[in-house]
Amino acid sequence: MINRRRDVRREFTGAPVDQAVLHRVLAAAHAAPSVGLTQPWDFVLVRDRTTRAAFREHVEIKREEFAGSLPEERAERFAKIRIEGILESSLGVVVTYDANRGAPNVLGRHSIAGLYSVCLAIQNLWLAATAEDMGLGWVSFYDEEFLTGLLGIPDGVRPVAWLCLGPVSHFEHTPDLERHGWRKRRPLEQAVHLERWGDTAISG
Amino acid sequence: MINRRRDVRREFTGAPVDQAVLHRVLAAAHAAPSVGLTQPWDFVLVRDRTTRAAFREHVEIKREEFAGSLPEERAERFAKIRIEGILESSLGVVVTYDANRGAPNVLGRHSIAGLYSVCLAIQNLWLAATAEDMGLGWVSFYDEEFLTGLLGIPDGVRPVAWLCLGPVSHFEHTPDLERHGWRKRRPLEQAVHLERWGDTAISG
Repeated sequence: MINRRRDVRREFTGAPVDQAVLHRVLAAAHAAPSVGLTQPWDFVLVRDRTTRAAFREHVEIKREEFAGSLPEERAERFAKIRIEGILESSLGVVVTYDANRGAPNVLGRHSIAGLYSVCLAIQNLWLAATAEDMGLGWVSFYDEEFLTGLLGIPDGVRPVAWLCLGPVSHFEHTPDLERHGWRKRRPLEQAVHLERWGDTAISG
Repeated sequence: MINRRRDVRREFTGAPVDQAVLHRVLAAAHAAPSVGLTQPWDFVLVRDRTTRAAFREHVEIKREEFAGSLPEERAERFAKIRIEGILESSLGVVVTYDANRGAPNVLGRHSIAGLYSVCLAIQNLWLAATAEDMGLGWVSFYDEEFLTGLLGIPDGVRPVAWLCLGPVSHFEHTPDLERHGWRKRRPLEQAVHLERWGDTAISG
């Protein structure tokens, strides 16, 4: 008999999120800096199970497309990796970007800076959720057009992320993809350059 | 004689940043989540005054171009707003994006998700800097090609931000652009939608 070591899998519990907690998390996101103070983000809170099931079905198709594009060894690893908790989480938070907010005279806006601002808000949301003992997963396997149609998002507004949010069984110290042997983290020292690209030693 | 009320302007002090503090701030950035665990960011630390002066000169030209595009009333407000602290800050931190890191099989990568990851790292850096009592300003008035040439950034790597970093005289409670009447913040309630786009009341 083979002794299989099984990981305790981190799971969303699905427990409802307290309204005051959710408000704090969204307020943290909304407090992010933004180019020209445009605050180009919106947050669509999705609890409806029919909506979530439809999105999950779409994501599953995109996941299979990606799996089919992988070499065999990578595909096997990928099969073991959880990529979404759309139905298991307490709610979905869809974060969008409105390119026309503050137009036409956006201070500092070049083509993509508004999208950058939305990402700053997402990271604030992520950190606030963690501080409130909630897990967060960013689902990236989807077509924007599908989500736009599903949620009635108007022209000119672009969905940037579907975030699965809610209490989890526990937190991991090592990222899932590293635990599953998908990819290792690189040391900080390799990412820091002095004065010009190329020199990678840290110095004060 | 006219009695002019002058704001106490928030200024970078230019004091050197302690090496341990800088390491903590960069480590916070480097701890950000990233699509497929690609960690596609790098950080170029720029203290050299010649490099900074050259960048500032370029930014000044771009600022004037933007000012020239504004209606008169907006241009007058804009003239009063500080948009950079390139020479006054302690150092510049240029954050870049390497689209090829982790390629070709990036888990979850669609065209722009790698750039999103870089922004998550930038927000971590921003919050960590604030926690260390340092100011941070994101300079967005520049051409990427100029910065690429100035710092020897190779093909395939894209500069996302020049961050002015360092101790400041004090912190403001109200964002600069709001204090200068450029734009008001909108209430959180307007940014939150329930189930589908359009309904903007917060609910738990």
